[in-house]
Amino acid sequence: MTATLVLTAHPGDFVWRAGGAIALATSRGRRVVIGCMSFGERGESASLWRKGYTLDEVKAHRRGEAEQAAKVLGAEIRFFDADDYPLVETPELLRGLIDLYREVQPAVVLTHAAADPYNFDHPFAHAIALKSRILAQAPGVEGPGEVIGAPPVFCFEPHQPEQCGFIPNVLLDITEVWERKTEAMRILAAQKHLHRYYTELGSRRGLQAARNSGPNLGLPNETYAEAYMRLYPQVTRELS
Amino acid sequence: MTATLVLTAHPGDFVWRAGGAIALATSRGRRVVIGCMSFGERGESASLWRKGYTLDEVKAHRRGEAEQAAKVLGAEIRFFDADDYPLVETPELLRGLIDLYREVQPAVVLTHAAADPYNFDHPFAHAIALKSRILAQAPGVEGPGEVIGAPPVFCFEPHQPEQCGFIPNVLLDITEVWERKTEAMRILAAQKHLHRYYTELGSRRGLQAARNSGPNLGLPNETYAEAYMRLYPQVTRELS
Amino acid sequence: MTATLVLTAHPGDFVWRAGGAIALATSRGRRVVIGCMSFGERGESASLWRKGYTLDEVKAHRRGEAEQAAKVLGAEIRFFDADDYPLVETPELLRGLIDLYREVQPAVVLTHAAADPYNFDHPFAHAIALKSRILAQAPGVEGPGEVIGAPPVFCFEPHQPEQCGFIPNVLLDITEVWERKTEAMRILAAQKHLHRYYTELGSRRGLQAARNSGPNLGLPNETYAEAYMRLYPQVTRELS
Amino acid sequence: MTATLVLTAHPGDFVWRAGGAIALATSRGRRVVIGCMSFGERGESASLWRKGYTLDEVKAHRRGEAEQAAKVLGAEIRFFDADDYPLVETPELLRGLIDLYREVQPAVVLTHAAADPYNFDHPFAHAIALKSRILAQAPGVEGPGEVIGAPPVFCFEPHQPEQCGFIPNVLLDITEVWERKTEAMRILAAQKHLHRYYTELGSRRGLQAARNSGPNLGLPNETYAEAYMRLYPQVTRELS
Amino acid sequence: MTATLVLTAHPGDFVWRAGGAIALATSRGRRVVIGCMSFGERGESASLWRKGYTLDEVKAHRRGEAEQAAKVLGAEIRFFDADDYPLVETPELLRGLIDLYREVQPAVVLTHAAADPYNFDHPFAHAIALKSRILAQAPGVEGPGEVIGAPPVFCFEPHQPEQCGFIPNVLLDITEVWERKTEAMRILAAQKHLHRYYTELGSRRGLQAARNSGPNLGLPNETYAEAYMRLYPQVTRELS
Amino acid sequence: MTATLVLTAHPGDFVWRAGGAIALATSRGRRVVIGCMSFGERGESASLWRKGYTLDEVKAHRRGEAEQAAKVLGAEIRFFDADDYPLVETPELLRGLIDLYREVQPAVVLTHAAADPYNFDHPFAHAIALKSRILAQAPGVEGPGEVIGAPPVFCFEPHQPEQCGFIPNVLLDITEVWERKTEAMRILAAQKHLHRYYTELGSRRGLQAARNSGPNLGLPNETYAEAYMRLYPQVTRELS
Repeated sequence: MTATLVLTAHPGDFVWRAGGAIALATSRGRRVVIGCMSFGERGESASLWRKGYTLDEVKAHRRGEAEQAAKVLGAEIRFFDADDYPLVETPELLRGLIDLYREVQPAVVLTHAAADPYNFDHPFAHAIALKSRILAQAPGVEGPGEVIGAPPVFCFEPHQPEQCGFIPNVLLDITEVWERKTEAMRILAAQKHLHRYYTELGSRRGLQAARNSGPNLGLPNETYAEAYMRLYPQVTRELS
Repeated sequence: MTATLVLTAHPGDFVWRAGGAIALATSRGRRVVIGCMSFGERGESASLWRKGYTLDEVKAHRRGEAEQAAKVLGAEIRFFDADDYPLVETPELLRGLIDLYREVQPAVVLTHAAADPYNFDHPFAHAIALKSRILAQAPGVEGPGEVIGAPPVFCFEPHQPEQCGFIPNVLLDITEVWERKTEAMRILAAQKHLHRYYTELGSRRGLQAARNSGPNLGLPNETYAEAYMRLYPQVTRELS
Repeated sequence: MTATLVLTAHPGDFVWRAGGAIALATSRGRRVVIGCMSFGERGESASLWRKGYTLDEVKAHRRGEAEQAAKVLGAEIRFFDADDYPLVETPELLRGLIDLYREVQPAVVLTHAAADPYNFDHPFAHAIALKSRILAQAPGVEGPGEVIGAPPVFCFEPHQPEQCGFIPNVLLDITEVWERKTEAMRILAAQKHLHRYYTELGSRRGLQAARNSGPNLGLPNETYAEAYMRLYPQVTRELS
Repeated sequence: MTATLVLTAHPGDFVWRAGGAIALATSRGRRVVIGCMSFGERGESASLWRKGYTLDEVKAHRRGEAEQAAKVLGAEIRFFDADDYPLVETPELLRGLIDLYREVQPAVVLTHAAADPYNFDHPFAHAIALKSRILAQAPGVEGPGEVIGAPPVFCFEPHQPEQCGFIPNVLLDITEVWERKTEAMRILAAQKHLHRYYTELGSRRGLQAARNSGPNLGLPNETYAEAYMRLYPQVTRELS
Repeated sequence: MTATLVLTAHPGDFVWRAGGAIALATSRGRRVVIGCMSFGERGESASLWRKGYTLDEVKAHRRGEAEQAAKVLGAEIRFFDADDYPLVETPELLRGLIDLYREVQPAVVLTHAAADPYNFDHPFAHAIALKSRILAQAPGVEGPGEVIGAPPVFCFEPHQPEQCGFIPNVLLDITEVWERKTEAMRILAAQKHLHRYYTELGSRRGLQAARNSGPNLGLPNETYAEAYMRLYPQVTRELS
Repeated sequence: MTATLVLTAHPGDFVWRAGGAIALATSRGRRVVIGCMSFGERGESASLWRKGYTLDEVKAHRRGEAEQAAKVLGAEIRFFDADDYPLVETPELLRGLIDLYREVQPAVVLTHAAADPYNFDHPFAHAIALKSRILAQAPGVEGPGEVIGAPPVFCFEPHQPEQCGFIPNVLLDITEVWERKTEAMRILAAQKHLHRYYTELGSRRGLQAARNSGPNLGLPNETYAEAYMRLYPQVTRELS
């Protein structure tokens, strides 16, 4: 009824960038479905290639990790097995995403930011996630399931935010599920150097959340947070 | 405990631009305090001048209207009697605003947008509202009362939003208090041509709110809304 | 000799967004040619689908409406019958647009704005309209007709302008042809809720035109206007 | 009846940056009034200081040049004798500018661009020119003369446009008065190195004007032009 | 070891826009490789078409000129013979660019700017140059040669910089190789009118370089320079 | 001969934000002069006020710390003792800064970024630092010493960079002086919570420097760096 849909270019993305939001939602009994467009086999598996893995072995390895991480976070996961580096639009990928939107009927959508000059799969994933969301709204576009409404979209933080035009306008307090996110991050053995990076990032965004939180929330400095960039206007019944 | 502080350049501003937000808050039992920097005696009282009012008469008239409108909206109102057109920074105005912040301890702040090439009092009011908010946070800045936290700031919609760099990122559903806002607008006799304008604006922003509202809110097309531009990142415990 | 070319993604667009400009030009004896890239069969015909129309019936219905509306406005209309939702580039569409530019030799071009996060057909139509304009200028690009010059391009207003980066820099007084635009809007039965919306928009943009008109034009508040965003620098022999 | 008001920080500005627009207007029998806020005695008279001139001599020299140049261009000139480098707001300067607006009742206003990191007098002049224009519109602001309407404002080109956020959106064909502008430039002996610079600039902007001119104007490559940035939306009865 | 890779849409681009940077590098004994995506046969050869050349003749002519100009500048040149006007992505072009990156192992990359509303081949060339650079970094992307590092990217100046979002952040002093660039420009007979244009541009950018050069460089006003826009942060061991 | 001038609003700023750049310059035998506009007595000394210090005691304490930190970094330091929170322009402060520029004749200038919605002293310091730099260039502005040239200006990183429009375009490798910066940070006892924050920042910016460094520098991941935003175009004799 109030599901979250997370659409990523590669499997690692949902852990590092949105693991807290996912764990927070599932900890409250909500459904979260992750759609991985590719296995990140070319662009984010350098260490496996260096070990001599074949393409199939790389994919199987990344799939295994991703399934394990999704399980820790309490989320379902789907794979579209599109080629990565570069990700390109195929009718199957677009069709699959439209169908997934209509199946999940998300109340919230998370995906990549609009720009990333260090990884072009990310803006591509952003563009196709938004495009399929609009198409899933139209009765004239065929396919199983009901058309969807207009769920809000939140972009997660890229690696070098200032170079990507990423201006955080939402800071999500994930302190209560931080351990869960940490556990999921430990699974991604192929990208160990990122563990420390994202722990510091969680702490820094948490400090900023505390600095920006009004009297109502009153967060302490020891908060952990994830930064997001909301794309469409927030619709609300209360200013806060 | 969860007060709202509304800081405006002239008395009319709080009715046209934020009357819905004010009525919504007071309808829920919250305190709202409006701080009018000037009486709008030079810049927004053309019809009174044309009738031959003196400066004092203009001010008294605008004060009367504003008090009446505030009463309809259920809010308190304070006047700083700074000169308008142009509003300029004086030690008294800055001091008064700092003291007001500390007295009210707002959980939410509403004020003008950062730019308005059609009325320079508006960006000035924006600047001094933000500046006094920061100063009110510092223990080293003297004055009565306790320092404040970091309440979120929402800018209300200027008359020609696209010329003012105003990009609405919050649409507030004010349908349930629309009658109250309408009643307040009727009081501002000096600016009657604005009544129709802001009724249509409420309806149009409401339609946009409906178009942007996800499955959780599910607003109908007949919604009334006010548009705001949030300045600092939203800090939250839930994406929605 | 001084023709206007209007390139739209779907048939409705030229009525709501540019009906005034079209009627104004034809009322002065100028030729206006409208190029509809698609019939809007999937993205803008929800009510027909809900009535159980087939694809061909939807297209025929939209074509009929569009031809009628064009006639009311005094304009010629061409259909490219590209698929919509999503519109995609095909060699035929690009070829057809280049040929149309060269046939019409437009002195003015109207099309969609560069961005629209609510409808991706619109920015696509913008992009291909600009691209084919440039290609039509080059002697090295084959095809019938003469190469064209560098006609100015005006983007018409999207539905939620602030979310589309649309900053109006031209306000066109269409008061004298307002009745004609109203008549054309009445034809678009499938999108009746838009009639009231665009009437209010015409009035609001008209009020802004009055507020921005210098002593030379001196427009009254009861003006009707359409907003446009000029893409290339205005070239002129007089500042006004 | 259709006067042009040119407001500059220093005397040289109106020649280099707007000499063509001025000559074009006066050649058509229109009144042009130039308001020089300062004599440019500190910021733009380095060569005179190096020759050992006193402050009064520098001012007298700059005044003489400016009067001569204005005469060549057919324009009236007023001096406010504010200090330059830095120009600062005084009640006298603001008052003087408001009065000048009301006296001249301009149909067109020319002034500096909003930013210039190489010369802070320019953005100051921009800001006070816009501020006094708004104040001159209000019946509540005292002073001789009638309130003004809303004349369009055009910013002239700064020396390093890309560093100043200057995006030309108007290219004015000044070919027919180029000789007049050249003559005026020759008068400004203190800044001779600028003569060649602005001749090339006129030629380059002219070439761009040709490239951007549609079939109606059809300018040749040998055009001379000045670039301007229009601040408020153009209000028009015809797209062209 | 410290090679420069220059990727252009058409042959002329590297001469007009980057001839100075190329000559400067080769004059210091560095390797420079130019990759021309197309021969500019449709978009930049209008004068040849008007003379009745066939497609093959146009290509051969442009190739000849380009080879000669590259020789004068001391650089190697490769041709990808993609169609121009419009340039489109093909697997061969992408593959070829990735391979070229890995062969050259550039320490510096030069290419077009991100936007150009007057020539869509330029932003396409920009996009594919950046995309292939990222792909060439990934061990998972097959092909001959070693993966590359992260060479800085500099965009060269488009014809109408302000319309292209081009803000120069690097001014390269090319005075010592100006004669060489001049010689290369003279070869491009098909575009003679550009010679004067780029000579003046070199002089103007040189003057700006002098104005922006601190005490360490202390450039004279008679400098020649080329403007570039650096895309990624500069990494340095010294601020200067 | 190649001095660096660092202009800050408060004493702490130069340590946290530019300590590495300062130590790097002095370690190479260059002169560095720090100009502190205020003692940060109101805005950045909350812990001292809470301990009951008087205004003079707060100032003396901050001066002592700053002198000690400057000594560790090998730099000279000057105090202007302007009031902080808010910093405002006085003739003395402006005069003092102009004189300092002319005395130091800097080859490099470091100061705050242009915007900071969390601390208005920072953008004020930015503005007056730039303004006095321009005034110090003009022979017509009196005062001791010679006029200065056009030294490049680098803004240091604000606390919440994305909210301040801060886009790092220079990453300075400070690994070799990291211990020195650490030592200086330890001195600022009043703001101990910042020590960990800036250590992580140094590491993160270092990682980004490594990711952005081309083959020539080839920095390891264990780099420490400071981020800067260069304001004026870089003038250079080599692209790298």
